Amino acid sequence: MPFAAILFDAYGTLLDVGSVRAAAERAFPGNGAALSALWRDKQLLYSWLRTLAGRYADFWHVTGDALDYAVAALGLEVDDTTRTELLAEYERLTPFPDAAPMLEALASRDVPLAVLSNGTPRMLDAAFGNTGLRHHFAALLSVDAAQQYKVAPAAYQLAVDHFGASADELLLVSSNGWDVAGAAAFGLQTFWVNRQDAPVERLGAEPTGIGRALADLPRWLDERG
Amino acid sequence: MPFAAILFDAYGTLLDVGSVRAAAERAFPGNGAALSALWRDKQLLYSWLRTLAGRYADFWHVTGDALDYAVAALGLEVDDTTRTELLAEYERLTPFPDAAPMLEALASRDVPLAVLSNGTPRMLDAAFGNTGLRHHFAALLSVDAAQQYKVAPAAYQLAVDHFGASADELLLVSSNGWDVAGAAAFGLQTFWVNRQDAPVERLGAEPTGIGRALADLPRWLDERG
Repeated sequence: MPFAAILFDAYGTLLDVGSVRAAAERAFPGNGAALSALWRDKQLLYSWLRTLAGRYADFWHVTGDALDYAVAALGLEVDDTTRTELLAEYERLTPFPDAAPMLEALASRDVPLAVLSNGTPRMLDAAFGNTGLRHHFAALLSVDAAQQYKVAPAAYQLAVDHFGASADELLLVSSNGWDVAGAAAFGLQTFWVNRQDAPVERLGAEPTGIGRALADLPRWLDERG
Repeated sequence: MPFAAILFDAYGTLLDVGSVRAAAERAFPGNGAALSALWRDKQLLYSWLRTLAGRYADFWHVTGDALDYAVAALGLEVDDTTRTELLAEYERLTPFPDAAPMLEALASRDVPLAVLSNGTPRMLDAAFGNTGLRHHFAALLSVDAAQQYKVAPAAYQLAVDHFGASADELLLVSSNGWDVAGAAAFGLQTFWVNRQDAPVERLGAEPTGIGRALADLPRWLDERG
C-alpha cells in the first residue's frame, strides 16, 4: 500500500547540524567541534525536559539556551554579536549532499512530502528557503503548533491531522534513532537513515525500514511496491 | 521556615553510578569507562523518551535496555550470566563517601528524610539495604508508583502526596542538574550538589541552593536558619 504522505525530520536528517561547527570554530578557535557537539546535545535534552516538565519554550529559545550552556561549560564567553551570528547558523544549515537528489527521485511519485520538525515555523521557512529545497514539500509542519517536542504523541499527531490520514498510512523518515522510535511508538511507519551504523534504540518499537543514506529511501520504497 | 521533609535523589547523588565501571571493566577489559558512561547516558535518555511517548517500563527494564544498547554500540557481545551480573551492580552501588556523614549530621534535626528516585522499589530496597543507609530514611519513594520518570510533574507529586505538604515546603537534593531544574519547575525547593562545577542548566528554573559536595548541605541548612 502506498503511503498517504512522507514526512521528513529536518535537523540531522535533511539538514546537517554539523555545519554549525565551522562557524563555532571561527568564533572559538580550537573549540568548534566540542562546542557544536555539546550545543546539539543540550538542544535535544532541553526539548525533552521542557516537554516533560510542561515548560514549553520554542526551538529558537531552546537553541539559544543550549548554546549559552555549551559556551559556559567550555569556560568560554560569548558577546551578543557572536551569539546572534552562531544562532543564525541554524537558518542556513547545509543540506546533506544526498538530500536534493533523493527529493528529486521522489518527485515523480504521487505522494506528498512534508517536513515534521521541532524547529519553529520561522526557522524552517528560513532554513528550507535558503537551501532551495522548499518547493519539494507540501508543508513544513512545526511542533510549535502542539507546544510539545518529539517524541510526545502530540507532535506526531500534527501530521495525522494535517493529512487526514491514519498514522500507519504515513511514513516518517529520520536519521535520529530516538525520533524513529518515538514515531513508531505513536504508530507511524518509519524509515531510519542510520548514517553511523548505530544499533537500534532499545525503546520497544522497531523501524519499518532502515538505510544507511537518504539515497536508500527511493530504493526501499520501490522494493516495498 | 524549616522544611517539611528533605528528599534525596539516589543515582548519582547518594549512590555513585560510576561504581559500575569496575565491573564493566572486568567484563570487558579496556571498555569499562566507555561502557559505563554510555550505559548511564542511555538509561536516562530512555527514561525521558519512554515517559514522553507514554511507554513506561520500569527502571530495571530500562537499565537493561540501556546496557544492551551500550554493549552493541561498542561492538561487544554479552552473555546472559555477564548481563545479569552487570545489572546486579545497580543493587550494590557504592555510596559517595560524604553520604553517610551528611545523613548523620541531619539525623539530629527534626525533619524526615526520604529518597525520591527513578529506581524500582526492589532496586531501592536492595541498594539502600546493602549500603547500610536505609535507616536514615522515612521512605524510599519510587516513581514507579506514578509510572512516569523525572522530570514529569507526576514523579515529584509523589513526595507532595506522601508528606501531605505543599511543594515549596519540600527540599529536593540532587547532583543531577536536570533533576534540580525539573523539581524547581514543579515548585519544590532544591539544593544542587554540583560536584563537577558545571553551569546551571538553562531550563528557566534556578536551584534554591548550590553546593559542591553533600557535606555542604548541613551548612547551607544552618545558614538558612
